[in-house]
Amino acid sequence: MIVVDTLAGADPRTVRERNRANSLDRNTSGMCRGYMQANLVILDREDAFDFLRFCIQNPRPCPILEVTAPGQFEPVLTAPGADLRTDLARYEVYRHGELVERRTDVRDVVTDRDVCFLLGCSYSFEHLLSDAGLPIRHHEQRIDGAPMYITSRHCTPAGRFGGELVVTMRPLPADQITLAVQLTDSHPEAHGAPIAIGYAEQLGIKDLARPDWGTSVALEYGDTPVFWACGVTATHVVQSARLDRVITHSSGYMFITDRKITS
Amino acid sequence: MIVVDTLAGADPRTVRERNRANSLDRNTSGMCRGYMQANLVILDREDAFDFLRFCIQNPRPCPILEVTAPGQFEPVLTAPGADLRTDLARYEVYRHGELVERRTDVRDVVTDRDVCFLLGCSYSFEHLLSDAGLPIRHHEQRIDGAPMYITSRHCTPAGRFGGELVVTMRPLPADQITLAVQLTDSHPEAHGAPIAIGYAEQLGIKDLARPDWGTSVALEYGDTPVFWACGVTATHVVQSARLDRVITHSSGYMFITDRKITS
Repeated sequence: MIVVDTLAGADPRTVRERNRANSLDRNTSGMCRGYMQANLVILDREDAFDFLRFCIQNPRPCPILEVTAPGQFEPVLTAPGADLRTDLARYEVYRHGELVERRTDVRDVVTDRDVCFLLGCSYSFEHLLSDAGLPIRHHEQRIDGAPMYITSRHCTPAGRFGGELVVTMRPLPADQITLAVQLTDSHPEAHGAPIAIGYAEQLGIKDLARPDWGTSVALEYGDTPVFWACGVTATHVVQSARLDRVITHSSGYMFITDRKITS
Repeated sequence: MIVVDTLAGADPRTVRERNRANSLDRNTSGMCRGYMQANLVILDREDAFDFLRFCIQNPRPCPILEVTAPGQFEPVLTAPGADLRTDLARYEVYRHGELVERRTDVRDVVTDRDVCFLLGCSYSFEHLLSDAGLPIRHHEQRIDGAPMYITSRHCTPAGRFGGELVVTMRPLPADQITLAVQLTDSHPEAHGAPIAIGYAEQLGIKDLARPDWGTSVALEYGDTPVFWACGVTATHVVQSARLDRVITHSSGYMFITDRKITS
């Protein structure tokens, strides 16, 4: 058995500082148990209003944790003192919808017109499930993060922002799914309750073995796939919008806030 | 299409009076929308205490709505004026665990030592699901009631009462199961939230096409089986106890109370 230090007990500030110093490069699933993790989208103020409308209209995949003022890169509400240009392990830069660069900081890329969006992430609730005795199969199988799938379901568009819903999948034993619904239902800021349970093809997912992001996770005997809305929907949507320039975190390498998720 | 009058809008008193007059003989699924339906068990006062302990220890399958005093057949709390010896459409009489007789009233069978148990039934919440737009496949497929299965899961025994949990199965589209959990979770008196979702074999159910009571229901495209604890567990358990004499309702032919289920 490979033992992986997931930094489960780490302090968010410590992780952010290590990211800032480029001394940590790791998927954040299981990291800093109890703290809310976030998807990051940075885009020009010109597009920020429509994107904010998009998030408000699609709160299941895109629950808003914080939106900064143009040119401000400190998330004063959720992680005061942090710097969103340096404190994530991996960033991606898209130009006209194409990934052009992966970086460990984006200080050279942003401008004073940029707005940062922090959107909730289902990593935030995984410890609620495991504390209740539910298995997290991607942890058990030593896979970085839950697999993600583009569905056939369309988000409500706003301006040039629109596209398909993205979901994460976690397999669960049939007799523990009700508890998973109950535990996550009260956390809309982390995508809330599952949006689908069971039959993947109903979401337009043809093959669970071929996720669109991440690595596939095996179902154990008695497992049923459970699907939650995923913040990568935001990445997918801003990419499809083919903006001149957009910066996002790399999927699974989330920003860790100081805000606790309460069970 | 066959149009069946399910007596959805009927008043419970009217249905009980028609049963008393033996002018109605029908599965009560869909009948008297909004009113709580009940499983009936009548047994000797000698056994009543242990059976009551059994119900308290197994509240998911056996939620207690009312227990009468010995020799009292009027459920004064849930349907004042009713007579539990006549106001159900079908009764079954078991002696030493064997079904010996089916009757439309049991006035000749009961004694003044008998205690009546009314236990919650999932028929009570079906209209909450359909009002919310969820399909009730056994209604759509013109099948009397949800199919019932004996599982491999054992109830907590009390005295001579013990045995396997019985469940009902309702197929639901993958993207509506969360709502079904939420709607039923707040109604423990009608078995509450599903006890399992998805993989039937985890409950020891080998073949969904072969229920232990009722008729099998077909899964539509995109459906996942959803399992709720069932009051027939009580029938199964009293039958297994091989008491000298036990009277129950016939599965699916429930007692309809005057109590409303609130959504």
